[in-house]
Amino acid sequence: MNKTSDIKVGMIGLGYAGFPMACLLSRKFPVTGFDLSEERVKELNSGYDRCGDVDKKELENMLKKGVTFTNEIEKLRDCNFYVVVVPTPIDENNHPDVECIVSASREVGTVISRGDIVVYESTVHPGATEEICVPEIETVSGLKFNEDFFVGYSPERINPGDKVHTVENTVKITSGSTPEAAELIDSVYQSVLGQRNTWKASSIKVAEAAKVVENSQRDINIAFINEVAKVLNSMNIDTNEVVDAMDTKWNALHFRPGLVGGHCISVDPYYLIERAEEHGVDAVLMKTGRMINNSMADYVVKHCIDLLAAKGKHIPSSRVLLLGFTFKENCPDVRNTKVNDIYKGFRQHTDNVDVFDPWADAALVKRAYGIDLFTEANQINSQYDAVVLCVAHKNILNLDVIPQWKTADGFIFDVKGKLPRNVADYRL
Amino acid sequence: MNKTSDIKVGMIGLGYAGFPMACLLSRKFPVTGFDLSEERVKELNSGYDRCGDVDKKELENMLKKGVTFTNEIEKLRDCNFYVVVVPTPIDENNHPDVECIVSASREVGTVISRGDIVVYESTVHPGATEEICVPEIETVSGLKFNEDFFVGYSPERINPGDKVHTVENTVKITSGSTPEAAELIDSVYQSVLGQRNTWKASSIKVAEAAKVVENSQRDINIAFINEVAKVLNSMNIDTNEVVDAMDTKWNALHFRPGLVGGHCISVDPYYLIERAEEHGVDAVLMKTGRMINNSMADYVVKHCIDLLAAKGKHIPSSRVLLLGFTFKENCPDVRNTKVNDIYKGFRQHTDNVDVFDPWADAALVKRAYGIDLFTEANQINSQYDAVVLCVAHKNILNLDVIPQWKTADGFIFDVKGKLPRNVADYRL
Repeated sequence: MNKTSDIKVGMIGLGYAGFPMACLLSRKFPVTGFDLSEERVKELNSGYDRCGDVDKKELENMLKKGVTFTNEIEKLRDCNFYVVVVPTPIDENNHPDVECIVSASREVGTVISRGDIVVYESTVHPGATEEICVPEIETVSGLKFNEDFFVGYSPERINPGDKVHTVENTVKITSGSTPEAAELIDSVYQSVLGQRNTWKASSIKVAEAAKVVENSQRDINIAFINEVAKVLNSMNIDTNEVVDAMDTKWNALHFRPGLVGGHCISVDPYYLIERAEEHGVDAVLMKTGRMINNSMADYVVKHCIDLLAAKGKHIPSSRVLLLGFTFKENCPDVRNTKVNDIYKGFRQHTDNVDVFDPWADAALVKRAYGIDLFTEANQINSQYDAVVLCVAHKNILNLDVIPQWKTADGFIFDVKGKLPRNVADYRL
Repeated sequence: MNKTSDIKVGMIGLGYAGFPMACLLSRKFPVTGFDLSEERVKELNSGYDRCGDVDKKELENMLKKGVTFTNEIEKLRDCNFYVVVVPTPIDENNHPDVECIVSASREVGTVISRGDIVVYESTVHPGATEEICVPEIETVSGLKFNEDFFVGYSPERINPGDKVHTVENTVKITSGSTPEAAELIDSVYQSVLGQRNTWKASSIKVAEAAKVVENSQRDINIAFINEVAKVLNSMNIDTNEVVDAMDTKWNALHFRPGLVGGHCISVDPYYLIERAEEHGVDAVLMKTGRMINNSMADYVVKHCIDLLAAKGKHIPSSRVLLLGFTFKENCPDVRNTKVNDIYKGFRQHTDNVDVFDPWADAALVKRAYGIDLFTEANQINSQYDAVVLCVAHKNILNLDVIPQWKTADGFIFDVKGKLPRNVADYRL
């Protein structure tokens, strides 16, 4: 096995999680970045990061230092410390789809050498690294696990759009397939994060479980407060006011109702649920939580349609404006956004549904969802019966013009509870 | 309505929540305390608080200042600010049992005068104060609500056994049936807690909801991590190690697996669940959480019996020692303790089950549960095949002798994950 001082990083996957980590590791180590997307590689090599989580200067510095981004795995042959950060999505039936980590493992297998280490950062079920990834590397490379090469698991804990809790100041869980591998992996991350900012778990499985459980825990907590919103709405009690009061306690959890989309919180629990089932445990609470969070888009639509009906509106000619389209605030990522479910829900009632998002890429949204997006506030030149705040981007919340977008008897429905109380007519 | 300076407090209910609040209010106001239990009243008047949450000197000071404790409601006739802190339990079918707040309201009705205020602190469903309590006061007193008398709701947020987060430093949510009542109630609590330590909610219902939701949220979080424990146990992964790793993140929630008994967390969700049902909302997540937490005692027993069987023990002659009996650590309260479920579970397999708890009142446990308790470590003079840590009292964790209580091939099962790793053979 190599020493920390000899490490050459090969980063497999340059997305929301991989690229910031590549950037961080490049401060101490030579880094070569690999991604399947030619567009992404071209953009990064030209100094542009569409995810926006890494400072432009930082990327320029990386390029100056000789960090390269490539589509050719061959270019990573000299590396000896591979970090795999690729998507672990679900299919249309909510089954984990491990194809990306499998093919990334095969790619690594083609270039890995004796003594090398492969660290996985993608969220997976406990056991996946050793049961799914290792055999692929062994098969392709012909090398033997824990003799010729070693693996580790160190979950990415990136919070996209969060400028306070960054990859740099978030403790990184590490683990390895042997005590020596664990030690080396821990020391590599320590050298860019600081000694106190890693946590060496006792096994790969513990590290894998920690990540998928922490995301599933977040899902359950949002599901709980969403269920509470349904209960309190039925009693005409404002959930956000109740949470404001709860938030005054020393052990308050601060969860608010809302949509759960994206590629982490709404996806990861299925990895744990399916694995539990294989072990004979029915994770009924997690399944119920998923069901509740998946129901919220329909709930919002139904709530708004009921309000329109109560106002005597002719629903098919009602006009609806959705504010925000990405899966979370202050982030351009539109993968698995639940605002699309809200859009589709309203479109079952009326053809007049417009969407405004200053963060999303209009061309991408058109291609992926078939929706013509407004990306500038001045594109909105008419009024709507229902204006629904779906994503609390700062540059939406800062707009004074929102009340002018509703008709005289129209309403503003605030899914996020983030608009001023005198602006929002209703809240989730 | 009276001014803050004229307030004379009548405290109805002198239990775990009522007595510390009576104590706090007596620092600024004359207080008369009422409780149905003659024993409790006699003890308090003699300077003894069996709950142990109030300093002995503090109680002595109260008595010196002229605070009186009584069983006679007549003695509270001169009071003008009634605070009701009585149990709101559930019956054997998990239905809310509001008999105590109803009868307390009637008692208040017999002595209340024009201009008086009644503040409820018991945990209830949203709407209960105005829908259940107010009519009782009106009927008995003949006074008219919001003309002759006013009510408020200000939930107790006592954490029994917690010497850090006390009644004094925990923000108190307040509310009132009119803006003036809300203001007066808030100022009364402010005068003993400080200006920044109250939070005036916009309505009684919001204040009621905040308390029952915060306890239900705690229940769901423990249920989630209990479900995770079941999942991870099936994969031979140590849940407490996983939570240790999760705890390194900036937004970690710090919940651990365990039993949920007592008279708050395991009870309050039913108040919300039943009320939701009346409003046509099936609180399926909360119900599932309750089911999981109620299943944990059986799960622990089954786990231990399986371990005994795997060791080839003859189960009916196996000997089991339970450490801790109260519903939570560092607290003598045995109401609705789930350790009794563990006890009963083991007793279905073997007659040889002993229980040790240095905090619990042995006579009370004998009377309520029919169990002969060891309350001193030196009463334990034999060895056991299974030693199960159920309650993590500090004065149990500090015992070096625990490993000596197991037989040569016996084991220690740590439900709470609080024993040193080299002491606990298994953890939940």
